Amino acid sequence: MPRSPRPEDKFTFGLWTVGWQARDPFGDATRPPVDPVETVHRLAELGAWGVTFHDDDLVPFGSDEHARQEHVKRFRAALDETGLVVPMVTTNLFTHPVFKDGGFTSNDRSVRRYALRKVMRNLDLAAELGASTYVFWGGREGAETDAGKDVRSALDRYREGLDLLAQYSTDRGYGLRFALEPKPNEPRGDILLPTIGHALAFISTLEHADMVGVNPEVGHEQMSNLNFVHGISQALWQGKLFHLDLNGQHGPKFDQDLTFGHGDLLSAFFLVDLLENGGPQGVSPYDGPRHFDYKPLRTEDISGVWSSAADNMRTYLLLKERAAAFRADPEVQEALLASKVAELSVPTLSDGESYADLLADRSAFEDFDADAVGVRGYGFGHLDQLAVEHVLGAR
Amino acid sequence: MPRSPRPEDKFTFGLWTVGWQARDPFGDATRPPVDPVETVHRLAELGAWGVTFHDDDLVPFGSDEHARQEHVKRFRAALDETGLVVPMVTTNLFTHPVFKDGGFTSNDRSVRRYALRKVMRNLDLAAELGASTYVFWGGREGAETDAGKDVRSALDRYREGLDLLAQYSTDRGYGLRFALEPKPNEPRGDILLPTIGHALAFISTLEHADMVGVNPEVGHEQMSNLNFVHGISQALWQGKLFHLDLNGQHGPKFDQDLTFGHGDLLSAFFLVDLLENGGPQGVSPYDGPRHFDYKPLRTEDISGVWSSAADNMRTYLLLKERAAAFRADPEVQEALLASKVAELSVPTLSDGESYADLLADRSAFEDFDADAVGVRGYGFGHLDQLAVEHVLGAR
Amino acid sequence: MPRSPRPEDKFTFGLWTVGWQARDPFGDATRPPVDPVETVHRLAELGAWGVTFHDDDLVPFGSDEHARQEHVKRFRAALDETGLVVPMVTTNLFTHPVFKDGGFTSNDRSVRRYALRKVMRNLDLAAELGASTYVFWGGREGAETDAGKDVRSALDRYREGLDLLAQYSTDRGYGLRFALEPKPNEPRGDILLPTIGHALAFISTLEHADMVGVNPEVGHEQMSNLNFVHGISQALWQGKLFHLDLNGQHGPKFDQDLTFGHGDLLSAFFLVDLLENGGPQGVSPYDGPRHFDYKPLRTEDISGVWSSAADNMRTYLLLKERAAAFRADPEVQEALLASKVAELSVPTLSDGESYADLLADRSAFEDFDADAVGVRGYGFGHLDQLAVEHVLGAR
Amino acid sequence: MPRSPRPEDKFTFGLWTVGWQARDPFGDATRPPVDPVETVHRLAELGAWGVTFHDDDLVPFGSDEHARQEHVKRFRAALDETGLVVPMVTTNLFTHPVFKDGGFTSNDRSVRRYALRKVMRNLDLAAELGASTYVFWGGREGAETDAGKDVRSALDRYREGLDLLAQYSTDRGYGLRFALEPKPNEPRGDILLPTIGHALAFISTLEHADMVGVNPEVGHEQMSNLNFVHGISQALWQGKLFHLDLNGQHGPKFDQDLTFGHGDLLSAFFLVDLLENGGPQGVSPYDGPRHFDYKPLRTEDISGVWSSAADNMRTYLLLKERAAAFRADPEVQEALLASKVAELSVPTLSDGESYADLLADRSAFEDFDADAVGVRGYGFGHLDQLAVEHVLGAR
Repeated sequence: MPRSPRPEDKFTFGLWTVGWQARDPFGDATRPPVDPVETVHRLAELGAWGVTFHDDDLVPFGSDEHARQEHVKRFRAALDETGLVVPMVTTNLFTHPVFKDGGFTSNDRSVRRYALRKVMRNLDLAAELGASTYVFWGGREGAETDAGKDVRSALDRYREGLDLLAQYSTDRGYGLRFALEPKPNEPRGDILLPTIGHALAFISTLEHADMVGVNPEVGHEQMSNLNFVHGISQALWQGKLFHLDLNGQHGPKFDQDLTFGHGDLLSAFFLVDLLENGGPQGVSPYDGPRHFDYKPLRTEDISGVWSSAADNMRTYLLLKERAAAFRADPEVQEALLASKVAELSVPTLSDGESYADLLADRSAFEDFDADAVGVRGYGFGHLDQLAVEHVLGAR
Repeated sequence: MPRSPRPEDKFTFGLWTVGWQARDPFGDATRPPVDPVETVHRLAELGAWGVTFHDDDLVPFGSDEHARQEHVKRFRAALDETGLVVPMVTTNLFTHPVFKDGGFTSNDRSVRRYALRKVMRNLDLAAELGASTYVFWGGREGAETDAGKDVRSALDRYREGLDLLAQYSTDRGYGLRFALEPKPNEPRGDILLPTIGHALAFISTLEHADMVGVNPEVGHEQMSNLNFVHGISQALWQGKLFHLDLNGQHGPKFDQDLTFGHGDLLSAFFLVDLLENGGPQGVSPYDGPRHFDYKPLRTEDISGVWSSAADNMRTYLLLKERAAAFRADPEVQEALLASKVAELSVPTLSDGESYADLLADRSAFEDFDADAVGVRGYGFGHLDQLAVEHVLGAR
Repeated sequence: MPRSPRPEDKFTFGLWTVGWQARDPFGDATRPPVDPVETVHRLAELGAWGVTFHDDDLVPFGSDEHARQEHVKRFRAALDETGLVVPMVTTNLFTHPVFKDGGFTSNDRSVRRYALRKVMRNLDLAAELGASTYVFWGGREGAETDAGKDVRSALDRYREGLDLLAQYSTDRGYGLRFALEPKPNEPRGDILLPTIGHALAFISTLEHADMVGVNPEVGHEQMSNLNFVHGISQALWQGKLFHLDLNGQHGPKFDQDLTFGHGDLLSAFFLVDLLENGGPQGVSPYDGPRHFDYKPLRTEDISGVWSSAADNMRTYLLLKERAAAFRADPEVQEALLASKVAELSVPTLSDGESYADLLADRSAFEDFDADAVGVRGYGFGHLDQLAVEHVLGAR
Repeated sequence: MPRSPRPEDKFTFGLWTVGWQARDPFGDATRPPVDPVETVHRLAELGAWGVTFHDDDLVPFGSDEHARQEHVKRFRAALDETGLVVPMVTTNLFTHPVFKDGGFTSNDRSVRRYALRKVMRNLDLAAELGASTYVFWGGREGAETDAGKDVRSALDRYREGLDLLAQYSTDRGYGLRFALEPKPNEPRGDILLPTIGHALAFISTLEHADMVGVNPEVGHEQMSNLNFVHGISQALWQGKLFHLDLNGQHGPKFDQDLTFGHGDLLSAFFLVDLLENGGPQGVSPYDGPRHFDYKPLRTEDISGVWSSAADNMRTYLLLKERAAAFRADPEVQEALLASKVAELSVPTLSDGESYADLLADRSAFEDFDADAVGVRGYGFGHLDQLAVEHVLGAR
């Protein structure tokens, strides 16, 4: 299996990732800005398939129309030269002070209107550049005190905004799908739609629910110490995994945005196994971009930036190898059988069986020997060990 | 405002709360069992409105039909004598070893069938006792390793089970509403439907989605360091707050089940404010039971058990007083205005305004002075301080 | 009890707290800089006793000697006019990129030397301004990967630096005590000396251990979900609580630096009870500054900044009132007796009793009825409820 | 490198690990008791070097003297037959209700006396069986409310107890070293000495501080999301790593006690690298037992128990291989050089250099170009990637 990234691997990066200047809450920037055009060329050289951006990554906030067109033109030229695609675009509704209480859910109605307009302008650009997914990360949609935010009204406004934008995109024929990105906190004390679950639940209430899914990020779920693979699985199960953000995190603390695999490595393995093999189901359930949303460490210089970009892809490909070997290993297959993993895909009721039939089945209850069944071992520990050994490349 | 609980306050307790014998992962029981009949009488004396139970709390696992009827008969008599109601009933699918890999989502199909039967039997009893809500806490529906659980199939089976049980309850005319109780982990390493959000999302896929809501527990969300008031607000917003479990917790650690208020007190205040006053909306959005699902500390004897039961209700009523005073305080009302809290309930688009109109409104974007608006303060800190002072009874 | 701050309350603030411009990892500054001279005047008006600073808060990094003297002169004049004192000073070894891998423990030796010199220069100023405590927050002393930091060597260097600086301060007759401020992470992935405990342990190895203590911060311990009151108690017990930082935090997430009391209110109550009343011991064990190290919310304008400063002090004074009432309440005293709280201060062995005597005491073991003693309740739940009711101002 | 455990690997297990019957807070036992004699034989077959126990693991609580001797005799015979050693013994001061408020720090003095006697009796047995380390896990030494525990008095009593027991052991010539095992919470809401740091700090105050060290457990530190390798490094640096407990954990939640490596695998790699190679220092700093304190999953039957025991050792040995290859890799060595990892072991001041010399060195400060040095990259990301690739067995 090739370990060098190829376009068909669909690896993509945000301009803001390699372009992060490494300013943090306690420190000044340690790196100069990177020209988006250079980023496009470097990513192409490294084997990436595409590049993504927030409006302000490409066109600095407050640029006039002429400057804006120049920025877009240069970027487009770089895309044309390299063949890189732009599968996803998103909006910055968090950096400027005007968004300090949010964009779609700011208590200030004029800010909400401004936010909608900012997105609409960028939807036009996204469509123009051929993007198929538009991500919404509402990092400022939240609160530090429950006294200051009427959460139910906030959700009303969130829905109003997304319904309007979905309608706009549809009417214009942009063919975009929307993907909401959950995060529990930071920069706000608590952010609305804090997990994959909350976002999925919210989506079910939207007018254009069919065109809205999620963009889960590894570290964001792990900031709540939730199992990322479980979350992604539920999103897939609901047909809503429209995009995803790969990176690393060491549990509940600030958002680390580490290189993929440089956090919970075992979980990264199971994630790649799910994305590539469908886990025990054996079929990849996701064919979208493998998008890295990470930050090169603040201690690194620009050469460290580009090597870290390559590291993300290399680790993904190595885990893909490990996952393939895991699924192919006869001892794993035997262990899966012993653990009855596939039996869970068999409906609990037989074909055509009604609850009345179940009630009439004495073997299911009256004659069921709970104690005897309770004694049987599931062998999950052995399965976990086999996975660990495959991760270690030791089988 | 009266500080003694009255039936109209709708305070309810699980038999398993005061009846907990205080066995924990590292220690043996410190208290004798409590007869459910005694519990009914004591709770009635303390001013509670109702009592709830798992099947096995009332009728020990493995009892024969005669014993079962005796248990139910004695319990019913106690209810009749005291006037206590049974608004909610639930099933124990976690104590017996047979459920060690779950009930509805065990890899072992025979266990799933047995679990469904166990619930059906108890639905009959719930209906017989006049319950209106049936809670499902799937504490064993989960995994310790991603290798051993096909999460998507597990969600299929979860749905299959709930669809079948909803059909059963409907066909029998039981008039029950189902409420799913999320929890992130413990006893399983990771539990399916770990948060309010995940449960709400799952519910949207059910055949009888209209009769299924959530039963969030304070401590369960706080185990993931999520804002409970936000979670409850989203459940209310989706019309799905069917029941709730009040208790206390000190952040991400084992499930503490402390007395209500004995954890994050400020959050408890905002919760009561939401339940009683609807927060800034001014109308209570929930008229169901105020159900305490807590555990008296293992260090307490039986007299400590009963006093702790009273403490839950007293703290709730005190917080209700504080919340009423908070809402009535003119300085709070002024601060809410300054923070534009109510402005969030005003739609972002004017009545009849289309996105085309918004695009045409230069004041919304082209002429919008983001810098000037970004400078304005929201006054959220002041609001939070007013809340703190009201909690402290200092205004 | 007066609720307006007076100098004898010893409230102090860092220049960097009210002076924070509200730049965060995802957003630009929302407030203009505040002139330190203005801060001194405003804090004096609000009733504060003193002000503290990092070198670079007062004299911008890179200022020449003349500018430096001007800054100090203006600041001194403001102190003289207002009577505010400077009880504590500290160094900024984290903002400039040169410190990206730490100051005392940077892998780069030249950076370590530079850091020591930067501190020495500022020790001179601290002494000149009459400070008695010098704080060391090693926010950049840490790592993101275990591969890159030899922790044992890092602790050698940390010790080397502190030993040298302690010698310097002593030789110059500065009379300063050093206070280390622990934090688990942020801005580094993991910071050395992550908790009060680790700092105390490290201090025990220093050459001048007697002049080094800790400066614990409420939120920093709560970022690890540790009990702050327990930590402070151990620091006091070891005679090492030299200073402390008061603020608020909502559990394991980024460092929130909320206004004091706007996080875990119950813990804030017990903290004030410990500082003011010595908890059950009845004597205040700490007479140093009550120092607020918080950040006014990014959503606030400058008027919100000053009101939040006042809020910190007001909440502290309100909690002091509540704690006094708690200790004076006869029912609390009775409950403390029932819980045997004071019995813990009685040595386990009698005066003069040896282990041989204990071994010979059959009542201690052979005739001890563990079961009977195990049945007794401790009444801790009741005590906690009394505390909650006192916090609520309901008794 | 051999992957089968040999006695010289010094692998040891607690009787309570494989013997855990899998009773948890929500579920009954799923496995029968295991005879300690069988455990000894099985562990020997698997290649373990030793076995450890709590008094009550070997001799059930309340056994009379005759029964006690029989239990010890049978156990001894098994040791003799197998050659297994008993390098560590500990006391159970947590299961029986009498310890519900702690052993050494119970508010009830009679319990404290009883606890000391229980330990003394078991110290005799430990010495008799040739143990060299005696572990103290104070799982019940803590509180759920700050109102009920005078922490400073508790630490007085903790010290009193340990001082007395140290004296006892010394006087009897037992040659035992004591090792305190920190844990932040569970079963108590907060446990005293919650982290490695707090325990080390406490130890520095003991009369026999020289004979007391720590017994850190992987999962216990990770329950506070602290870096275990950092903690262990500080313990080693202070000469206090007397013993350690290996297992796995998925961040801040209940104590999972997973098989070693089945949690944070990257951290497990760096731990083994530290223990075996001394990390970058190149010399193993620890030659004590590699002790597994884990719990076989509740879902497993007895065959799963024994296979999980083997898994712990196998994973340790695999990580040892990976760590050896990591240290031997020339590219790693080059990267360590580029990251100046070894430079941190060079004192910051030159040999014989005084602070006056440092002050006189203009190159250290006045002529130091902070901006230029701030630009240099440290290459930590590359180092982390090399580690990940070695863990994956991909180099």
